[in-house]
Amino acid sequence: MNSTSQIPYKIYLSESEMPTKWHNVRAAMKNKPAPLLNPATHEPMSFDDLRPVFCDELIKQELDNDNEYYDIPDEIREFYKMYRPSPLVRAYCLEKALDTPAKIYYKFEGNNTSGSHKLNSAIAQAYYAKKQGLKGITTETGAGQWGTALSMASAYLGLDLKVYMVKVSYEQKPFRREVMRTYGASVTPSPSMDTEIGRKINAAHPGTTGSLGCAISEAVEVATTTEGYRYVLGSVLNQVVLHQSIIGLETKAALDKYNITPDIIIGCAGGGSNLGGLISPFMAEKIRGEKNYRIIAVEPASCPSLTRGKFAYDFCDTGMVCPLAKMYTLGSDFIPSANHAGGLRYHGMSPIVSQLYDDGYMEAVSVEQTSVFEAATKFARTEGILPAPESSHAIRVAIDEALKCKETGEEKTIVFGLTGTGYFDLFAYQKFNDNEMSDYIPTDEELARSIANLPKV
Amino acid sequence: MNSTSQIPYKIYLSESEMPTKWHNVRAAMKNKPAPLLNPATHEPMSFDDLRPVFCDELIKQELDNDNEYYDIPDEIREFYKMYRPSPLVRAYCLEKALDTPAKIYYKFEGNNTSGSHKLNSAIAQAYYAKKQGLKGITTETGAGQWGTALSMASAYLGLDLKVYMVKVSYEQKPFRREVMRTYGASVTPSPSMDTEIGRKINAAHPGTTGSLGCAISEAVEVATTTEGYRYVLGSVLNQVVLHQSIIGLETKAALDKYNITPDIIIGCAGGGSNLGGLISPFMAEKIRGEKNYRIIAVEPASCPSLTRGKFAYDFCDTGMVCPLAKMYTLGSDFIPSANHAGGLRYHGMSPIVSQLYDDGYMEAVSVEQTSVFEAATKFARTEGILPAPESSHAIRVAIDEALKCKETGEEKTIVFGLTGTGYFDLFAYQKFNDNEMSDYIPTDEELARSIANLPKV
Repeated sequence: MNSTSQIPYKIYLSESEMPTKWHNVRAAMKNKPAPLLNPATHEPMSFDDLRPVFCDELIKQELDNDNEYYDIPDEIREFYKMYRPSPLVRAYCLEKALDTPAKIYYKFEGNNTSGSHKLNSAIAQAYYAKKQGLKGITTETGAGQWGTALSMASAYLGLDLKVYMVKVSYEQKPFRREVMRTYGASVTPSPSMDTEIGRKINAAHPGTTGSLGCAISEAVEVATTTEGYRYVLGSVLNQVVLHQSIIGLETKAALDKYNITPDIIIGCAGGGSNLGGLISPFMAEKIRGEKNYRIIAVEPASCPSLTRGKFAYDFCDTGMVCPLAKMYTLGSDFIPSANHAGGLRYHGMSPIVSQLYDDGYMEAVSVEQTSVFEAATKFARTEGILPAPESSHAIRVAIDEALKCKETGEEKTIVFGLTGTGYFDLFAYQKFNDNEMSDYIPTDEELARSIANLPKV
Repeated sequence: MNSTSQIPYKIYLSESEMPTKWHNVRAAMKNKPAPLLNPATHEPMSFDDLRPVFCDELIKQELDNDNEYYDIPDEIREFYKMYRPSPLVRAYCLEKALDTPAKIYYKFEGNNTSGSHKLNSAIAQAYYAKKQGLKGITTETGAGQWGTALSMASAYLGLDLKVYMVKVSYEQKPFRREVMRTYGASVTPSPSMDTEIGRKINAAHPGTTGSLGCAISEAVEVATTTEGYRYVLGSVLNQVVLHQSIIGLETKAALDKYNITPDIIIGCAGGGSNLGGLISPFMAEKIRGEKNYRIIAVEPASCPSLTRGKFAYDFCDTGMVCPLAKMYTLGSDFIPSANHAGGLRYHGMSPIVSQLYDDGYMEAVSVEQTSVFEAATKFARTEGILPAPESSHAIRVAIDEALKCKETGEEKTIVFGLTGTGYFDLFAYQKFNDNEMSDYIPTDEELARSIANLPKV
């Protein structure tokens, strides 16, 4: 601990210091992310192509590679004030436990009932749906983080929400389901008998416990066939990275307030929304040659899209109903092994993050599950917060970098994103506590097989 | 919402504004809380009587009715900085939803992994144990909030912790158990075969799922028979109210910063630790005639110790191994019905709170479970935080008072304690969501029966 330091344990911006605009990193990118393609024609998706599925304003944001800043509407800023600014925490206790000269900071996004950063985009997407005069929105959820965030935003705005929740999660993880119901969302186990695709899948695979791909297909079908509804998605899309830039903007404002310049910025990467948002303003400076941050994406060794995937067009969903996106992918039929970090079990990666990685602006590392939980436990015991398994990927690499500093004596400043809490992940912690957790790394042959099935574009 | 107001959504004290002393309300009390009595001799417990069970410094605090302020040791202040100051939140969104002229504030203690205010005393008790050179501490836990808080504090200080957890909770509520294990505590289902009393109870009641009283007895036995261990308790005791005064001191500092004087202060009351801590500095002003706050304790109708109990000496535990305390009590063999607010299911009440209530300095109301969950749901949907069932008792009465203001047009300022989050209480929310929750109010005959068994002092 460092009680004499000028830097407090937690840096909170005042409300007047909170960002009033989102940052669109695409404006700074030399190579823009490739456009979404129509899965049938392989032509770029136009505004009109996307209108049956998404809200108008969100499509505008999705397609805009030019405007660097977007005003955050007042109503969204009011909502942000309920749970933001999130603290930028100086990890004094972790530093002491590691006996490192490194200075470690983390941006903690878990202090809200959704338990993660997902709420930042949920409120934005729900707001534009409401503003467009819609009656409701649909979405899918796996473990339930995104669904929870969206149910909170929808309840606040008085918008109807239909969530299709992967059946196995619906049955085995009842807690997040009940949070969503408490916020007034209707939660349906997927595949259901409510939709054509659901009935088809149930008929073809009696007793199936569902998949995210199937739940997406159901949510999209309901949105496009119900008057006054649209579909919303919590990651991967450009608009989501735009909304999540609030994380990076607040982080930067808090660092600037104390004249701190990070050497290394670390984020976990599943679909890329948190990482993309965290690095957004820093990346723009790096691209423009104003600063030279090391930026590191951390992914699970069990689902290594950046480190072992291919940069190519692929389906965003296993149901293949969504547009094609150019991204680092393991193939849309890649089934990740049972890694508990549900939020990182995605075969692809945000096109923005993918392009930035391909252009050499960032590094990527993959880490194994047991070492992630070791880091999570160390962090919990020293910093007092029980981290989400997803976030703990970033903790693992932050600790590794801090330990390198211990060897070299360098006083590097490390910033990482702590995206959420692990309160709903305790079966995974139990496995770790009981020494029943294992690691799995897909073989080259496995990856080659799923990557071989990419669509020919 | 009131975006033009001078008062921010969340008032955070800066680290330099955080309290450096705890407040001992007993110093201001005209009638001091009655002393603990030896259960065998009915003589007041002396420092030496208490030494086999509690740490020396904590006994000193327990017995001290005179010193109004206690310096908070630096090490505890450092720990507090990891999760404090907690925000004092202006409930703009709830006010708007209620359409009330009342101004509602809540002090939110749930932003830490223990999920409640319990951590404030856990770190203090663990610190004094460590400072005394002890190897470890023992405690009991029911649903697990106190055990979780103590495991966090013990992990931070490198102190061994043995938790005896009521067997039915150990088996049916595995999540908090796993949090405690992640923080390195040993968690034993009670009654166990490790202790004499546990073996005795298991022999007498084969297959019993345990009780808090039994778990206390086991924890006390282990503490008093193991070299280098002491027992710690999370509520009821005077020392706990002292540590929890950090809640009230921060609340008062935040209000003072914006020149706000509350008209009504509301807290839920189980053992009284949160309520006692919240009201501490305000109560001292009221006793001295400097201010005239209305102070309201809220308890469950199913366990109404203040509103329907007797102010008399009673056992603190059902096992009758602990000292007698003079308090409002329903009798130590009163078994509350299955009310989900586990933290409020206590037959007695802090002697400090009891004395203040008996002296007329505060009011008490009891509320029924379903109306509490209605208030909890309303709060979650407007303020974004899923509240603990315990805390929701205070929400219920805060809403009721705000609605009275709507009728009269009065712009009263209401402050209530939001002690924690409901993330581990989702079975209860599920019951409410499914309309399967019921209310239970004990009959006069029932209460008369359990109160008739009070010890004759």
